[in-house]
Amino acid sequence: MNDAMRANLLGKLQHVAIVAPDLTAASDLYRNVFGANVSAPLPLPEHGVTTVFVELPNTKIELLHPLGKHSPIAKFLEKNPAGGIHHLCYEVADIEQAIQQLSNHGVRILGDGKPKIGAHGKPVVFLHPKDTAATLIELEQV
Amino acid sequence: MNDAMRANLLGKLQHVAIVAPDLTAASDLYRNVFGANVSAPLPLPEHGVTTVFVELPNTKIELLHPLGKHSPIAKFLEKNPAGGIHHLCYEVADIEQAIQQLSNHGVRILGDGKPKIGAHGKPVVFLHPKDTAATLIELEQV
Repeated sequence: MNDAMRANLLGKLQHVAIVAPDLTAASDLYRNVFGANVSAPLPLPEHGVTTVFVELPNTKIELLHPLGKHSPIAKFLEKNPAGGIHHLCYEVADIEQAIQQLSNHGVRILGDGKPKIGAHGKPVVFLHPKDTAATLIELEQV
Repeated sequence: MNDAMRANLLGKLQHVAIVAPDLTAASDLYRNVFGANVSAPLPLPEHGVTTVFVELPNTKIELLHPLGKHSPIAKFLEKNPAGGIHHLCYEVADIEQAIQQLSNHGVRILGDGKPKIGAHGKPVVFLHPKDTAATLIELEQV
């Protein structure tokens, strides 16, 4: 394999997403117990989630709760009623290049394999956890 | 509650720990597929794990594999044979103050409640996931 095929894709850890069965309780934990800066809940109906952002000095935590009938995190919460860490999001400079490099190595992209506009208004893809050490990984182009 | 009792405890996200059933495969994924800087495996017998560090620009991923007969991550791997995200580690400036603030809010510290010397040679505690939105959280004093 030549170097061009093995560019370092990984930028910053953009966020860690945690699914919470009780978004108020999870927000209170980070705001009132840990004392962190925590946003108000932001409903994102087109993504099927309500999200709360917890600011850390170097990255952020996103607390997620299902919104609407077809939430992509509903199944996770059924399987994990107490909630838990749902995915990691890494920044990439060029999502098409990332998809190409990953595909060259047999890493599958979820869905139709094409970037969608994610919760932050930027192109994102999710990688198949079976190909990524059992970790659901989102890549976001920045 | 007064402000002194609600200091912002949370420093940087020090690392995200991922338990891998096959440490070589997980290292290869991050090194050869993502193209990241990945350390050699570091056996830490006193902590019951072998660890591999993946450098990101703003934090790191720690890939963990059980080492020895009494590994603290053996049960996790039994329950999750494919592995997965195990815990988040937040930096704190003063671990005794953090323990006090958390205890005031009923958040339990695992074990005997006292800091231990962690894998990086610094005082750490783990918080009870039932009190922290079903997320295993390590606090490391820096």
